[in-house]
Amino acid sequence: MSVVEQMLTTHPDRRDAGVEEKLRACIEACGACAQACALCADACMSERDAADLLRCVRADLDCADLCETTQRVLCRRTEGEDALVRALVKACAEACRMCGEECERHAPTHEHCWVCAEACRRCESACRELLAAL
Amino acid sequence: MSVVEQMLTTHPDRRDAGVEEKLRACIEACGACAQACALCADACMSERDAADLLRCVRADLDCADLCETTQRVLCRRTEGEDALVRALVKACAEACRMCGEECERHAPTHEHCWVCAEACRRCESACRELLAAL
Amino acid sequence: MSVVEQMLTTHPDRRDAGVEEKLRACIEACGACAQACALCADACMSERDAADLLRCVRADLDCADLCETTQRVLCRRTEGEDALVRALVKACAEACRMCGEECERHAPTHEHCWVCAEACRRCESACRELLAAL
Amino acid sequence: MSVVEQMLTTHPDRRDAGVEEKLRACIEACGACAQACALCADACMSERDAADLLRCVRADLDCADLCETTQRVLCRRTEGEDALVRALVKACAEACRMCGEECERHAPTHEHCWVCAEACRRCESACRELLAAL
Repeated sequence: MSVVEQMLTTHPDRRDAGVEEKLRACIEACGACAQACALCADACMSERDAADLLRCVRADLDCADLCETTQRVLCRRTEGEDALVRALVKACAEACRMCGEECERHAPTHEHCWVCAEACRRCESACRELLAAL
Repeated sequence: MSVVEQMLTTHPDRRDAGVEEKLRACIEACGACAQACALCADACMSERDAADLLRCVRADLDCADLCETTQRVLCRRTEGEDALVRALVKACAEACRMCGEECERHAPTHEHCWVCAEACRRCESACRELLAAL
Repeated sequence: MSVVEQMLTTHPDRRDAGVEEKLRACIEACGACAQACALCADACMSERDAADLLRCVRADLDCADLCETTQRVLCRRTEGEDALVRALVKACAEACRMCGEECERHAPTHEHCWVCAEACRRCESACRELLAAL
Repeated sequence: MSVVEQMLTTHPDRRDAGVEEKLRACIEACGACAQACALCADACMSERDAADLLRCVRADLDCADLCETTQRVLCRRTEGEDALVRALVKACAEACRMCGEECERHAPTHEHCWVCAEACRRCESACRELLAAL
């Protein structure tokens, strides 16, 4: 069981199992995507053709920021309001979509972009499934 | 001249003066609001009636996170896309509105909530003006 | 293979295998600890005795912030300097030690504190092993 | 009066005036330095010689992260421990020193690096003064 799952099942205020499962998946996907994007931004800056990858660096930095903040807000279940959660998860899905598309363009030549694009797609999908469940 | 204004005017890629002014105002309002919210969350936790202020703490923490991330993304002007900026600034305005309303409820008894509510309102307004200018 | 491991092995600038393994372990431990602390802070605020857990909430918030920032800096391997990395990883280990000790005090009555204490100890240990390897 | 000053003076748990003044100065310097560094990283990536400025981008990103986290932790005055604050403020001063030195190298050709170097020096100095007062 992941740390997130252990924490959610010991939280004093449980949600219905369906929503909680989407929540867990989205928190974990955000965490992994933030790591992938932070590492992809740095890998791009290390490449010989770094100057051609600055659009990718920028998308990575935005996506990492959005994923971290979304993860933080999703971890707060006490006294929250759905309007903010929905707006933020939508913005996060948009960041993941943009970053995933940009990384995919470089995937044939840079393997880290391929790995990162996968993480972005998984996170975008987890965001959209959570939005549908809320 | 503020640091943000100095930095924006020395950036190699200038924007039209109207948008740049809204951008500067929004970055600065996000920075001040993030500070106010971080300090308000802690001040609430220090109050004797902390247990009654947890909804305010939570709103403060969310709003601080949104403001910091929005500030970061707005600082990136290279190779960005408006769709993400718009979605994020909307989410930030929503966080400021919620936090401002919650803080206002405690403003009569807790002066820090009054100061924080003001910062939230200024930031919400700066976000909406930037959205209108984009 | 975790996303972090996939990203590190596709980074254009590889390190020696021993250091890279400690780096991977530390990045992953920071990510998991940040999630545990964010969730523990919220769970504490949801408890009936929340007013008695504010010291734990505070330790959780600090530890989550330190772990996220350490993770971010560790993800940057291009053009960095060890002096900053060492100072930050030391501060992170200190945050994990403090938060782990505080959570442990509440572990007998609050299971989420027990889970969080474990995550803090693993992260403190990963930080110290990375420091020894640098 | 700045927002930080208004918030500190309405906090239920006041400190002695000397320390509080250093605290206020450090929180504000961290906020301004984080903004300068975020904007400098992006400005560098917008320059024609971006490929020669990647060391500066990296220093900017690290420094922005350290300043934001230090600001957050300094905003928490309830139930904290000085050991962590000291370790973090030291790491932040180190990040500011490194980033200030790197930016200074590019100051003759890039004015944003000159502005950022100034912000880094002010923040390093505010960190060291706070350390001396704690």
